[in-house]
Amino acid sequence: MITEKLYENIKSKSVVCVGLDTDINYIPEEFSGKFENKCDAVLEYNKRIIDSTYDIAACYKVQIAYYESMGIKGMKVYSDTLKYIKSKNLVAISDIKRGDIGATAEKYAKAHFSGDFETDMITVNPYMGTDTLKPYYPYLESKGIFVLVRTSNPGSGDFQLLKTENGKLYSEIAEKIKSEGMKYTDKNGISQIGMVIGCTHKEEAEKIRYENPGSLFLIPGYGAQGGEAETVKILLGKNRLGVVNSSRAILTAYKKFKTDEFDTAARKEVNEMKEKFI
Amino acid sequence: MITEKLYENIKSKSVVCVGLDTDINYIPEEFSGKFENKCDAVLEYNKRIIDSTYDIAACYKVQIAYYESMGIKGMKVYSDTLKYIKSKNLVAISDIKRGDIGATAEKYAKAHFSGDFETDMITVNPYMGTDTLKPYYPYLESKGIFVLVRTSNPGSGDFQLLKTENGKLYSEIAEKIKSEGMKYTDKNGISQIGMVIGCTHKEEAEKIRYENPGSLFLIPGYGAQGGEAETVKILLGKNRLGVVNSSRAILTAYKKFKTDEFDTAARKEVNEMKEKFI
Repeated sequence: MITEKLYENIKSKSVVCVGLDTDINYIPEEFSGKFENKCDAVLEYNKRIIDSTYDIAACYKVQIAYYESMGIKGMKVYSDTLKYIKSKNLVAISDIKRGDIGATAEKYAKAHFSGDFETDMITVNPYMGTDTLKPYYPYLESKGIFVLVRTSNPGSGDFQLLKTENGKLYSEIAEKIKSEGMKYTDKNGISQIGMVIGCTHKEEAEKIRYENPGSLFLIPGYGAQGGEAETVKILLGKNRLGVVNSSRAILTAYKKFKTDEFDTAARKEVNEMKEKFI
Repeated sequence: MITEKLYENIKSKSVVCVGLDTDINYIPEEFSGKFENKCDAVLEYNKRIIDSTYDIAACYKVQIAYYESMGIKGMKVYSDTLKYIKSKNLVAISDIKRGDIGATAEKYAKAHFSGDFETDMITVNPYMGTDTLKPYYPYLESKGIFVLVRTSNPGSGDFQLLKTENGKLYSEIAEKIKSEGMKYTDKNGISQIGMVIGCTHKEEAEKIRYENPGSLFLIPGYGAQGGEAETVKILLGKNRLGVVNSSRAILTAYKKFKTDEFDTAARKEVNEMKEKFI
């Protein structure tokens, strides 16, 4: 089961999830200048980042929007990046945040759990209800999903924090996801249905971890978005059930470390993150 | 402005939105058998459906999941379908239901309002908050968005109907979308920010239309999903501010009318729908 593999990585490598939100503008010109088109540059950049971090990162999160924005060629880069991750026997999370009615969700499941865009885990949006999640369940023997629960963006509270009869919207969603998730657990008791929980809401972290003891969290928001290591550690809990995404800080670490060797810099950044979450 | 064009179509053609959720299995074998690969068959089928309905349909809704499920070649069919709609000066709605944090939403906006996947209007998911919608606003001079508010699927009530302090979740979202939408209106007072409102919730229809008098509704759920013409008419209101999607019933109308001429059958189905909503 994919969560078993991911949890092994968390224990043996780190909780760091390397975000491949690779904007061409993040790439040093000395590198991108070598390629005839920007798509080739992005793919090679991704490969170099993967090569320099594969033994210290838990997984790779590929943000599909960045590739969609480059059109059909970008989708090829997206596909090739996923294939590269697979070829190295690493774990890929596709950040696609899809969510649609049953018949359509079946197509999304087929699209992202097989064929050109095959990945290990995807993010999904629960707004349309739990029946929109069910088409992904038949794949959970080998794949996994992370459901958006409490996101890291500044406006995330607009709806997620609305008070409901039993708490707040996000906690009602978490409750539902948790009960669905209990049907799909691995040998460690970890559910194949994880949750996206941003680390930008320090005051909520303890409660969220306490209420969802067996849930694997995909944790965005660290660093540039304001999330702190202290909050990350609370969300990980004593069992370290989560992965912490960082994209730009890793992809552009060469700026911080003032070097041309972007891959070495990325590795250094991952190692720095790793230390902070222990 | 795109809503002006769409509203012209509503008045001069009909409120019918032809859904191009084109599954290869919907296509008669006599037709698909002519093509070497299924992607070519889907594209040609789409073109034939468009050719036979362009003067009686308000717009075309292309459901991206069906194309994503065919991988990179499918994305090319998706792109070519949109290009064909554009070449005929028709209105395309891309049903992509994207929703993500600001920087990522900017990429989605670029992806779907320019380049290979350029379309006229897209559907977006509001769960992450209003800041996730803002990156689409700079495009609203020529493009439009439909925000998921009250969807048509059976489980849509799981979260959308949760009671909040001021009503229900979906009505709080509608309220927020309405106030955002007021900043972007066309010469008819119609907002470029529309709402997705399923017609499977008869008891809510009057209230939703009453509370959102200037909002254009994209209305799914008619027919197979159980939505009735009566509910559609209430949602359209006296100003007929909406388009009613039908996908499978149009794409497979040849079965209902027991004919091999799928395009003539599609036209007949659109005309039947049109009559029902008057």
